Amino acid sequence: MIQHQAVSPSATQTHFADTLIARVRMLGHPLCVGLDPHLDPIPPLFRRGSMTPRDPQTASAVEEFLLAVLDRVADKVAVVKPQSAFFEQLGWRGIQVLEKIVIGAHDRRLLVLLDAKRGDIGSTAEGYARAYLAPDSAVPVDALTVNPYMGRDTLDPCIHLAERHGRGVFVLVKTSNPGSGDYQDRDTGGVPLYERVTTSLTDIAARLTGPGTGWSSLGLVVGATYPEQAVRIRACLPRALFLVPGYGAQGGRPADAVRGFVRGPTGLEGGVVSSSRGLLFPREADTAHTSVWEKAMDAAINAAIADLCAAVA
Amino acid sequence: MIQHQAVSPSATQTHFADTLIARVRMLGHPLCVGLDPHLDPIPPLFRRGSMTPRDPQTASAVEEFLLAVLDRVADKVAVVKPQSAFFEQLGWRGIQVLEKIVIGAHDRRLLVLLDAKRGDIGSTAEGYARAYLAPDSAVPVDALTVNPYMGRDTLDPCIHLAERHGRGVFVLVKTSNPGSGDYQDRDTGGVPLYERVTTSLTDIAARLTGPGTGWSSLGLVVGATYPEQAVRIRACLPRALFLVPGYGAQGGRPADAVRGFVRGPTGLEGGVVSSSRGLLFPREADTAHTSVWEKAMDAAINAAIADLCAAVA
Repeated sequence: MIQHQAVSPSATQTHFADTLIARVRMLGHPLCVGLDPHLDPIPPLFRRGSMTPRDPQTASAVEEFLLAVLDRVADKVAVVKPQSAFFEQLGWRGIQVLEKIVIGAHDRRLLVLLDAKRGDIGSTAEGYARAYLAPDSAVPVDALTVNPYMGRDTLDPCIHLAERHGRGVFVLVKTSNPGSGDYQDRDTGGVPLYERVTTSLTDIAARLTGPGTGWSSLGLVVGATYPEQAVRIRACLPRALFLVPGYGAQGGRPADAVRGFVRGPTGLEGGVVSSSRGLLFPREADTAHTSVWEKAMDAAINAAIADLCAAVA
Repeated sequence: MIQHQAVSPSATQTHFADTLIARVRMLGHPLCVGLDPHLDPIPPLFRRGSMTPRDPQTASAVEEFLLAVLDRVADKVAVVKPQSAFFEQLGWRGIQVLEKIVIGAHDRRLLVLLDAKRGDIGSTAEGYARAYLAPDSAVPVDALTVNPYMGRDTLDPCIHLAERHGRGVFVLVKTSNPGSGDYQDRDTGGVPLYERVTTSLTDIAARLTGPGTGWSSLGLVVGATYPEQAVRIRACLPRALFLVPGYGAQGGRPADAVRGFVRGPTGLEGGVVSSSRGLLFPREADTAHTSVWEKAMDAAINAAIADLCAAVA
């Protein structure tokens, strides 16, 4: 059992939202780099062996590729978002790579938001919380995405560790996929389900509010493809961080991606906008030459940053 | 690594529901043993080193403990249900243990239902499907639990591999926890959300129906603590397998656990009833002596089986 010990927020304790927003303000944009290591488009520069999921060489190739990506983005973005599925696909060696990538990101002063969309009850939910949100976790990330379907009580263990250790928790609310309306948009007594989920998190958002910026480490996942819903959700929770996926490859435009953001001291702010495939696999980076790959990656990242800088200005 | 020999997809291809129900009929009960390796209650017989999550000896202890459990239950139950969170907690070594446990279960002719409650969109959902439901998956299980919150389209990759390789997919519908009503019970135009999710799966249930028994490999997670809701859900999908957690430790009684079952050739049937802590950690099994541990485990399992046999008779 996780001990429900009183939280002592010391002056030096990190707070996810405060740290994230401070870095976003300094950089001038909210871009988050999604680390979705699809195997097929990994460039020749990094490919080894069969590149099938269970070949040990595949895990080495993914590790080398992602560490090189971290080098490209290190001073340019605040946060990276590894997608758990692509690591799980490689079996235990994939989790070993994920652990190394988390360390590698932290070494480069990048925050890590693990996109795992976990959700379970009671002691199992505690298991997930301990796996990712404690200082001695096997995969010690700064924030985690979670799924609310099983009920508010199922979020408690992650919220508890977030409060205690200054981590972030992003709850799925309105996702970016075409079928997200199937259940999330259903009217539940006058409000759609996604809005009901949002308002049920009001007290948690307050508990996780940062002393520095007033932003909460209780985050919400709100797809870039649903800007009108983003505005409604922002009205419900004015200080919850948004994780906005679906930018780029899925069709979300810069202005839509930041529609749920609000005016801050340096521009529009209120979360991060994530792009994965467009940043990891630009066409020009499909090469065996280091310098060509580096140039193509830098160009893709700089272009995405410039678009977002314009949108939040 | 030992290569797990996959079932070749042919005319003799296995079908999850047909295989499961055939074994349940033969055994006379629907008990599923949940493999939730909490660290604190692992008996002295298996404990090694610090038993903290990141100590390599902990993973070895968990492996040895669970393989011994598999030996105790091998000829007594049809299926085991490892809970992913407890393996993830141990980092990559935990996933290595999970892989060995899946192989160990298959070697003992046990089906494996991985309780991971995954759910994501597009290519990420494909990643999860490939990680668990393909013959060449890193963790090649027979069935997987999934979360429907993100929408029906997000289930497609798992359903596709289930259809192609004879696997099972269990969708969360009405979970066993106290807070499951927060969103699942919300009225959505005349029916609660859990019922809307259920009926939206009608065509998938039909696609995955087994030629042998008429039961579908599209399964539903329906907590033992909500027997009345189980009856409603059964009326919506008469041939979907139920995974009924919450039996035992969470307070669900045998008669409640099988309330959504229907009369079959050998008794009530329609899914499996899962117990974890009560079976893995009976008080009398907290010992350093092999024979005492074995006797206590056998007694706990036999008692649970007897209770369920009586309930389905």
